[in-house]
Amino acid sequence: MERQFDAELNALNEKLLHMARLAEESVALAVKSLKERNEALAQDVFKREGTINLLEIDIDELCMKLLALRQPVASDLRFITSAMKIGSELERVGDLGVNIAEVSLELLKQPALKPLIDIPRMASLAQSMVRDSLNAFVNRDEKLARSVCERDDDVDSLNDQVFRELLTYMMNDPSTINRSVGLILIGRHLERIADHATNIGEDVIYLVLGKTIKHHIEEIRREAAANAGIK
Amino acid sequence: MERQFDAELNALNEKLLHMARLAEESVALAVKSLKERNEALAQDVFKREGTINLLEIDIDELCMKLLALRQPVASDLRFITSAMKIGSELERVGDLGVNIAEVSLELLKQPALKPLIDIPRMASLAQSMVRDSLNAFVNRDEKLARSVCERDDDVDSLNDQVFRELLTYMMNDPSTINRSVGLILIGRHLERIADHATNIGEDVIYLVLGKTIKHHIEEIRREAAANAGIK
Repeated sequence: MERQFDAELNALNEKLLHMARLAEESVALAVKSLKERNEALAQDVFKREGTINLLEIDIDELCMKLLALRQPVASDLRFITSAMKIGSELERVGDLGVNIAEVSLELLKQPALKPLIDIPRMASLAQSMVRDSLNAFVNRDEKLARSVCERDDDVDSLNDQVFRELLTYMMNDPSTINRSVGLILIGRHLERIADHATNIGEDVIYLVLGKTIKHHIEEIRREAAANAGIK
Repeated sequence: MERQFDAELNALNEKLLHMARLAEESVALAVKSLKERNEALAQDVFKREGTINLLEIDIDELCMKLLALRQPVASDLRFITSAMKIGSELERVGDLGVNIAEVSLELLKQPALKPLIDIPRMASLAQSMVRDSLNAFVNRDEKLARSVCERDDDVDSLNDQVFRELLTYMMNDPSTINRSVGLILIGRHLERIADHATNIGEDVIYLVLGKTIKHHIEEIRREAAANAGIK
């Protein structure tokens, strides 16, 4: 019985790693399609979407089965509820890859605005965060999970920089408005991908420590006490 | 024992309804601050954030306790895992309210671009979706949940309309670029709030039917079979 439960937990790990790999590839392909002005790469992103969505459902069904039949407690219970959450984070990363590919296809109808440097850098940072957050999960590696959360600030500041630069572009040359807005949206999508990886990192820390670091809980308990008037 | 379990499930309902009310208020206040050019209303959104975040953690902890101690199966198990998912959807709605309030404060530093009509309409649609999705959850009302999912298209088309109109604005008068981009971002945030309400609606349908309608599963199982080459 124990051995079968371990096999099921391993299967869950494998599915999550597979899903993470597909989601990371989607992001990479979507940004590559834009950088290399290659429509076929954007189409490859759409092909991955169905598989990613199906994996989310499989993972959910497996988790529900494990909760119902194994009635896990303590760390096994946290592992399974974390897996469900991570499945939905990864599904959103896949969706954002699709959103980027859609904008990319629009942008490819027009001449390139400028050589892309910061957006591919953001993409590669966000991808490494997704990859590391999953490695942290399967290895229950709290340190790696924390490093994922820390990298979120780098993506945010790159995005701020991209945003300001593109605003200036539009103001100096209104003929670039359409393309600049497209790139601004891609920047936001990448920022959100990094946010999802950060959420996964927080889930891993919760899994390992058995307590949440989300929202810096002590801090907000104080704030909430101060704003107790709002009920 | 049974009676105590029912009381705990009711407490979970109450917490989710409270959280939904705060999240909906945040969205309403953020958009009202913009429409009425009132900074104080945006500040009220920030005051709600801590309480919303704390409720997410409370709900999560209560769900984990119920899973560990009550070892629920079937519909009770689905109820608890749905509650966890709905808690994180609502936390994101609260975050998006904060994002809207932040953009609003930036926009209030500049003269109004134009009277706002579609953005408040989007906001009120998105708010009603959040409210109804939670009512559908506590009353296990599949029909109401489906109506929430259906309304998502209305929000999406309003957002497309807002987006196109603002692009035209910027092109005709580049001095409006900064403000138009701000309003475009607010439109996206509202669209995402409607997406979260739709996710909750799908969770409710899963809770009631015991099977997922997410991602139109049959359709994607076919697609995935067709794209089986991508592994």
